[in-house]
Amino acid sequence: MNERQRARRPGGRSARVGADVHQAVTDLISERGYGNFTVGEVAARAGVADSSIYRRWGNLATLLTDTALTRLNAQSPMPDTGSLAGDLRTYAAAVAREITGPDGLLLVRLAVALSSNGQQGLQARDDLRDERTRQLQSMLDRARERGEHAPDALDVLDHVLAPMYIRVLFGMDPLTPDYVDGLVDRLL
Amino acid sequence: MNERQRARRPGGRSARVGADVHQAVTDLISERGYGNFTVGEVAARAGVADSSIYRRWGNLATLLTDTALTRLNAQSPMPDTGSLAGDLRTYAAAVAREITGPDGLLLVRLAVALSSNGQQGLQARDDLRDERTRQLQSMLDRARERGEHAPDALDVLDHVLAPMYIRVLFGMDPLTPDYVDGLVDRLL
Repeated sequence: MNERQRARRPGGRSARVGADVHQAVTDLISERGYGNFTVGEVAARAGVADSSIYRRWGNLATLLTDTALTRLNAQSPMPDTGSLAGDLRTYAAAVAREITGPDGLLLVRLAVALSSNGQQGLQARDDLRDERTRQLQSMLDRARERGEHAPDALDVLDHVLAPMYIRVLFGMDPLTPDYVDGLVDRLL
Repeated sequence: MNERQRARRPGGRSARVGADVHQAVTDLISERGYGNFTVGEVAARAGVADSSIYRRWGNLATLLTDTALTRLNAQSPMPDTGSLAGDLRTYAAAVAREITGPDGLLLVRLAVALSSNGQQGLQARDDLRDERTRQLQSMLDRARERGEHAPDALDVLDHVLAPMYIRVLFGMDPLTPDYVDGLVDRLL
């Protein structure tokens, strides 16, 4: 059982600590932005010892990506609708909702912050990307197992996810359902 | 004549001040990152009065975007090769070189910083986007005038620029010439 699974298990001290620490991170990001708080400040806010955080997450970069992944997995889990077009449309719509919401550019902000945070930051960014890519790949693999012709995960990134992120980043939302469906249809 | 043109004109006090202020901004970004310096600090570094900066640029957000645009226009000017495919390939290759270079994510970092900097930041971000889109649109208009079938500027953003930005942001470079040309060919 990995850290994320343990943190999600209802009840238990470890789960409570995980939830408190994630909440402290979320609050500090929203108050100060990435890069403007320390592990010590997260620990104080969550009411745990610094050493508990270091033991469980290793460093701040890993804690930041774990918090983001937990949130993303809750907000836009990979769908399983029975068809590739259905899965991709549902997933793209969830991502569009998420990135136009109040914490919209969570992933972009996090990636920017991690990119300028040395080797630990780069490693955490790569792990985050690999985990999200792995989830997307599972969805595409299920389609292939059903005999559907599925694109590569990188094509989904390039032609469905990247346009939505860049449009939101440069203030070109709203991402209408027609626009989002159009990105999926164009790819398929 | 707008500020940028004045700043670029060789010689003259205004041009020298513009160049000194842009250099001060570039140095401060590289030392501290966006959001971690003030107009007063730029002025001190450039050896000019705060009031000169406010009179010419109005606020820090506008100064940041003007500095970025001057740099981008110098590094990846819009090409005019005589064909749409040639223009787009040349432009995409220049953007790929620029964003995989040392200051690679300049535009993404700047947009993230401006997005969390109130109304002035959002306005400056929108102006920056509109100016770059206008330049791209001129290139596409030239192709239409030659009788070529040209995509919309937004399609170029979505399917050529956005994938490259997101790949660099998540550490998925290098952007090989085959990959970059492939994005253009797929769009055309």
